Amino acid sequence: MSAHTESRFGAEIYGKRLERAAELTRAAHLDALLITPGPDLRYLLGSAAQSFERLTCLVVPASGETPSVVVPKLELAALDGSAAGELGLHMVSWVDGVDPYGVVKSTLNAGARVAVDDAMPALHLLPIADALTALPVSATPIIRELRMIKDAAEIDALRRAGAAIDRVHARMGEWLQPGRTEAEVAADITAAIEAEGHDRADFVIVGSGPNGANPHHSHSDRIIEAGDVVVIDIGGPVEPGYFSDSTRTYVLGEPDPEIAERYAALERAQAAAVAAVRPGVTAESVDAAARNLLSEAGFGEAFIHRTGHGIGLSVHEEPYIVAGNETVLRPGMAFSIEPGIYFGGEWGARIEDIVVVTEDGGESVNQRPHGLTVL
Amino acid sequence: MSAHTESRFGAEIYGKRLERAAELTRAAHLDALLITPGPDLRYLLGSAAQSFERLTCLVVPASGETPSVVVPKLELAALDGSAAGELGLHMVSWVDGVDPYGVVKSTLNAGARVAVDDAMPALHLLPIADALTALPVSATPIIRELRMIKDAAEIDALRRAGAAIDRVHARMGEWLQPGRTEAEVAADITAAIEAEGHDRADFVIVGSGPNGANPHHSHSDRIIEAGDVVVIDIGGPVEPGYFSDSTRTYVLGEPDPEIAERYAALERAQAAAVAAVRPGVTAESVDAAARNLLSEAGFGEAFIHRTGHGIGLSVHEEPYIVAGNETVLRPGMAFSIEPGIYFGGEWGARIEDIVVVTEDGGESVNQRPHGLTVL
Repeated sequence: MSAHTESRFGAEIYGKRLERAAELTRAAHLDALLITPGPDLRYLLGSAAQSFERLTCLVVPASGETPSVVVPKLELAALDGSAAGELGLHMVSWVDGVDPYGVVKSTLNAGARVAVDDAMPALHLLPIADALTALPVSATPIIRELRMIKDAAEIDALRRAGAAIDRVHARMGEWLQPGRTEAEVAADITAAIEAEGHDRADFVIVGSGPNGANPHHSHSDRIIEAGDVVVIDIGGPVEPGYFSDSTRTYVLGEPDPEIAERYAALERAQAAAVAAVRPGVTAESVDAAARNLLSEAGFGEAFIHRTGHGIGLSVHEEPYIVAGNETVLRPGMAFSIEPGIYFGGEWGARIEDIVVVTEDGGESVNQRPHGLTVL
Repeated sequence: MSAHTESRFGAEIYGKRLERAAELTRAAHLDALLITPGPDLRYLLGSAAQSFERLTCLVVPASGETPSVVVPKLELAALDGSAAGELGLHMVSWVDGVDPYGVVKSTLNAGARVAVDDAMPALHLLPIADALTALPVSATPIIRELRMIKDAAEIDALRRAGAAIDRVHARMGEWLQPGRTEAEVAADITAAIEAEGHDRADFVIVGSGPNGANPHHSHSDRIIEAGDVVVIDIGGPVEPGYFSDSTRTYVLGEPDPEIAERYAALERAQAAAVAAVRPGVTAESVDAAARNLLSEAGFGEAFIHRTGHGIGLSVHEEPYIVAGNETVLRPGMAFSIEPGIYFGGEWGARIEDIVVVTEDGGESVNQRPHGLTVL
């Protein structure tokens, strides 16, 4: 037995999203969207239902007819908190012994061409392909168009998430001290992330000294020492499911001048990328703004990852702020700007804000100082 | 940025699992297994790597040749804790800009028929099908054969998980009191699940009074009252990833005789199902042992779900203890035995232990008393 709680926006928001999803499905010359539990279902229906071995699947006909939700009878209650009821969707429940993939097929016309959400597991995708005798395509080109542009309620949720994680960074001096292990510090941060209004901590990176030079380090039993530079990259979801993600870099005692100088270049690079954000420019141009500045400062090779990733109901989503991404920025897009510099075996630093594209620029939802914070 | 920590058994255990997986793949007339992050990857490689937009994929050739791991260069460190290094697997890293599905294809012979893990998301499965110009089949019939029979180290992990969740049930009187909400009680239980040695709480059901009649209830703001019957169904993973799952039913004050009589029938049904466990009998016969006893007592219609589910690296896995499952029990299988009775709008009760099939019977990993505990 397993279950969950959920919260969501007003039903009319989901009604509009479903209509728009049907329109885009029609425009893509497809007949229906099939959406299983995951961020796309949460986006379209306000349901945080989890995926289990029993199939739950939202069927959105391209025709604009009322969508259906195929759902195990035992899981019906899990959809009570979603917008499905208020919107009058067809609830098609099934019981053990029934073939749920045949039930999905029965909601479609013969020969229907369908698109499926990216999160749909093979467990369900392979039998759906079998029942429809056709391989579905990815629904992501359709859903991305919707999820990439945040509405006012979503931007408000991202602001609340930003303020919550800022409150955690503001308290870092309580926990980040020489003589403690990264894991001990991470445990305190995890508790604070929850206490400051997140549903849970999703990731807690405490990269001290040489561990800061690995951007994907989590935390370890390394004892933090006086003089260490420490990368703290933390976040989690706030209701109704929108993520915070913010990195600040700390130093335990006054940094030596070379570290301070390199960090200053990183700080300028992060600010340059934020300043480059406005409608009409490409995602890759924002990446280039940070990268060019670090290259000119001589640290281009120390910046070993993309500048950022979209964020919303997923920690990583479109648009990616990366070379080669010619997506043109539009108001309502939201993404991280997080350049970093990494000196293998020695130290690393990263500065990360979440930035929302406004009508004439970019708004950071994170307000903590960007400098190297001396603790 | 996101990351994780991991722990695992000795490398030789994963080496044997990989060999056996290759043998079974060969026997199924397939050429390779493709396994992405999830419980199957944890089983075969000891890696708790998470699934992201960048592909990580273990390729196990049926030929018995050394497996490969296709992995984003940035995520290579995430596999450091796995057995891949000690076992000398081929690490095939790729960088942004490269087509990782082409890389997977390059590890296979032309026309290879492959099976994929059930957790593989459409995000990766659809492009793999495209690259191979063939729809993969499910790897589950192969992996199930392996995962369903736990070895000594896995049974030990399940015993540790059982003891940990027993310690939480033993303290229930500290938290479960009239005047508190289900949510408040659930928060205390969540903290205790973590404090008693779990990585995290995976599910916390506090079903008081009428909420106990919904087997998939989680918890709510309902204030618990004197006299309530309360179903507590809780669990989470202990290192290296094996789940606890145990239900006990409590009553706040002496129960009235009708409740006590109905509960006594449930207790007999649960004990009968446990007593029915031994090698050579079918999964459905264990379900029938509980169901027949409740039917004879007049409560057959109040028992609205299957008797149990397998458990290990997933909370729900094979074998399912359900009518129609003719799987013959073998030593090393592990599953829940959790009959329940539900009286809509009034109350419900459930008793759940995890039972491991031994050479001559069944061993419960949970030791708490099965009676209706009066608090």
